[in-house]
Amino acid sequence: MARAPKTLTHIGKRGEAHMVDVSQKAATERIAVAEGRVIMSAKTLRIVEQGDAKKGDVLGTARLAGIMAAKKAHELIPLCHPLLISKVEVEVTPDKKLPGVRVRASVKVTGQTGVEMEALTAVSVACLTIYDMVKAVERGMRIEGIRLVEKRGGKSGVYRADEP
Amino acid sequence: MARAPKTLTHIGKRGEAHMVDVSQKAATERIAVAEGRVIMSAKTLRIVEQGDAKKGDVLGTARLAGIMAAKKAHELIPLCHPLLISKVEVEVTPDKKLPGVRVRASVKVTGQTGVEMEALTAVSVACLTIYDMVKAVERGMRIEGIRLVEKRGGKSGVYRADEP
Amino acid sequence: MARAPKTLTHIGKRGEAHMVDVSQKAATERIAVAEGRVIMSAKTLRIVEQGDAKKGDVLGTARLAGIMAAKKAHELIPLCHPLLISKVEVEVTPDKKLPGVRVRASVKVTGQTGVEMEALTAVSVACLTIYDMVKAVERGMRIEGIRLVEKRGGKSGVYRADEP
Amino acid sequence: MARAPKTLTHIGKRGEAHMVDVSQKAATERIAVAEGRVIMSAKTLRIVEQGDAKKGDVLGTARLAGIMAAKKAHELIPLCHPLLISKVEVEVTPDKKLPGVRVRASVKVTGQTGVEMEALTAVSVACLTIYDMVKAVERGMRIEGIRLVEKRGGKSGVYRADEP
Amino acid sequence: MARAPKTLTHIGKRGEAHMVDVSQKAATERIAVAEGRVIMSAKTLRIVEQGDAKKGDVLGTARLAGIMAAKKAHELIPLCHPLLISKVEVEVTPDKKLPGVRVRASVKVTGQTGVEMEALTAVSVACLTIYDMVKAVERGMRIEGIRLVEKRGGKSGVYRADEP
Amino acid sequence: MARAPKTLTHIGKRGEAHMVDVSQKAATERIAVAEGRVIMSAKTLRIVEQGDAKKGDVLGTARLAGIMAAKKAHELIPLCHPLLISKVEVEVTPDKKLPGVRVRASVKVTGQTGVEMEALTAVSVACLTIYDMVKAVERGMRIEGIRLVEKRGGKSGVYRADEP
Repeated sequence: MARAPKTLTHIGKRGEAHMVDVSQKAATERIAVAEGRVIMSAKTLRIVEQGDAKKGDVLGTARLAGIMAAKKAHELIPLCHPLLISKVEVEVTPDKKLPGVRVRASVKVTGQTGVEMEALTAVSVACLTIYDMVKAVERGMRIEGIRLVEKRGGKSGVYRADEP
Repeated sequence: MARAPKTLTHIGKRGEAHMVDVSQKAATERIAVAEGRVIMSAKTLRIVEQGDAKKGDVLGTARLAGIMAAKKAHELIPLCHPLLISKVEVEVTPDKKLPGVRVRASVKVTGQTGVEMEALTAVSVACLTIYDMVKAVERGMRIEGIRLVEKRGGKSGVYRADEP
Repeated sequence: MARAPKTLTHIGKRGEAHMVDVSQKAATERIAVAEGRVIMSAKTLRIVEQGDAKKGDVLGTARLAGIMAAKKAHELIPLCHPLLISKVEVEVTPDKKLPGVRVRASVKVTGQTGVEMEALTAVSVACLTIYDMVKAVERGMRIEGIRLVEKRGGKSGVYRADEP
Repeated sequence: MARAPKTLTHIGKRGEAHMVDVSQKAATERIAVAEGRVIMSAKTLRIVEQGDAKKGDVLGTARLAGIMAAKKAHELIPLCHPLLISKVEVEVTPDKKLPGVRVRASVKVTGQTGVEMEALTAVSVACLTIYDMVKAVERGMRIEGIRLVEKRGGKSGVYRADEP
Repeated sequence: MARAPKTLTHIGKRGEAHMVDVSQKAATERIAVAEGRVIMSAKTLRIVEQGDAKKGDVLGTARLAGIMAAKKAHELIPLCHPLLISKVEVEVTPDKKLPGVRVRASVKVTGQTGVEMEALTAVSVACLTIYDMVKAVERGMRIEGIRLVEKRGGKSGVYRADEP
Repeated sequence: MARAPKTLTHIGKRGEAHMVDVSQKAATERIAVAEGRVIMSAKTLRIVEQGDAKKGDVLGTARLAGIMAAKKAHELIPLCHPLLISKVEVEVTPDKKLPGVRVRASVKVTGQTGVEMEALTAVSVACLTIYDMVKAVERGMRIEGIRLVEKRGGKSGVYRADEP
């Protein structure tokens, strides 16, 4: 794992927030993978899966919401740079062991900053969409474990999260 | 706690996703409270808090990002209705016990649908903003426990999450 | 069919564009239904249908894109009023006779202006999404026949398009 | 005309929608031209033209709406990549033979994907804007013939639609 | 003129920013009028006017940009409530005495909060658009005197700015 | 100061507005600095400053609103090109001499067009946000002197505004 700086790069000299200057960074290929999960009862998961088996809609809707949200990360997160994302892939997988649904997003760019926030935003909004579509059945669902799984490209090199 | 329906209201008769018809629902006052947390190392939390003590910026930026995101929930979540939110409040509190930062959002509306998604979106985006501003120090942070804490108003009545 | 005024209500006294004043209109329930179609070769339609039979994705993606676009009509169309849409439904149906795909959107609101533009925008964006997802196979597809099918509510009463 | 692939590039291996990876494509200059038309009665067209002769507003508003919409194509169409458009031109021309209004959009970019969707979105939203501004006079207008006229640049080479 | 409170209503008890709760306010008709001006050389103004005489475009584009921006005020200004604007009118008038262009926006709503920010945003963006379209001719233009001219409706009653 | 062209580059041959073609311009580093001020009574300024001393919120909120608005300039200003901003910095400084608050924004990009509009939009929205947060105390505040201070990069070279 690459060494991280020990200062908050978004905080200016006098403490005010600002968008950091990335103009001197090289435009290289950068990849980020993030994940998260929505925890629900086994009964709710069955309803989601049956719906999905027949129609694909809860999971398919969450997948699209995640993809579209990746393109909006810089609008939502104040100090995030706009980027020309070259790929977004969101996987939404029911998992009986949780029980619940696992979400994994992978984003690629050729640019001057990384796409961690795009991948994390895709995961978050996909999870929120699952919650929205299933909340009438179970309000007590929780979104857990949203984290960066992997990051490649850029000066800070490769990052890979510890398992699990 | 009010009883929840046992069907997916966003799924049409033939299984396709649609925005449910709320035109016959009464326009009543509705409130939702949601929470979540960003887990980080004690060392990272100290950097955040020192930054905040002097400048208020990591936590203040997250708070504003959460408020602004509540207004965008219907743009992010495909089947969410647009609403005229009448109040948003986002609290962002460092907590040494986690260690990390707790986020709590409370949203109010007078309208035909609830504001759970607005509150959950505010929490999610505030957490993502904290991650964004501190990621240079610690990439391994995790966003955990995003859930609905309380909901009042509308036909389904009062919902209150079990502790903790 | 109700009688339509014979002046351009969006044009001011000196000819400049403006958003018309709807503050004196009653907030009544209003419904609009619009339709359109994407014309393609029979061969392309088969690819779309097979994709859909197995996966639901071309048609499902178009459906969601249409629903989300209905919420954006007032951002796209300069003099369109913002509205609190209470329902959006988009149907996307392959039709061998065209050959191609038919799109139909139905939008409901309780408000001071109609939702024709929301329904027409939903249809247009659903058609554009079909084009986007299938264009690698056939660039020569055309979007045809986007029109208002029905409109109810408001002072101008019921409008129903002539068949077909 | 260049040969088109015979698979749906937006559909993943297991059938789910995703944004295709364009990171290996060269950043070349790409141009797309699209067209469409709004069909109305001769009487309505006269009102539009008189309005336009004096004030330029129906046609001018449609032109601007089309330009602004080209910049939003990637927000509306789920799997469309964001792009740094370098030029947008929208022509809006009354045509007594239709009778109605012809819309033609031309978009240019230096990037890794084409701008067909940007041009088609510009045309669609310009047509919707004309409908919006004239609908009080004639609700039965139709939007017809939205199609790609020409496309240059990128690996798939030149595409030119058959006449007319 | 109505008496204004002497505290900052957007600042919470512990000093953090929040969207104030307007849920107890009555939904009454509210109007706000704002103005501003772009100052330029007499020579630049002539170019604008000649362009406008023939084509209406600098001034017409600014007018539309102002109208569309009024609908976006709550997205731009963090603590501003979303509103269902019922009317927007923007006047853009060349004035040889300045020399420059005067902008005046008038916004109406039936709602729980005022539309001052919508009117001021419309004026600001119309002025920015004039700057954008004329900057190739004169970079030294200035935007001056953006202020609220009049406000009616709501508990604070009527406000009218002192002349001029 | 570099020489400016004497024509309106946004106006087409027949007078219609269009986004100018920048595809032949070199992608160079470009910087723009803009400024503006909000004029208020000395008493109001004291309230703002006390709020800020304790909490940082009026000024901090304006700063963030300005940064986020820079990313939206191309959505607000019809003929403005989208850009990948590489840095935004907004300074918000109380000034007893005005009395009021000075706003200064600095934006950097590597691209084919300048960032004047991004800097001016950041200043405008930061000023509007200050107005919004303090308007309950003094409705008569004015936004004055929004102008370009400096511009570097691109074919037109360096521009620096005359003092003050």
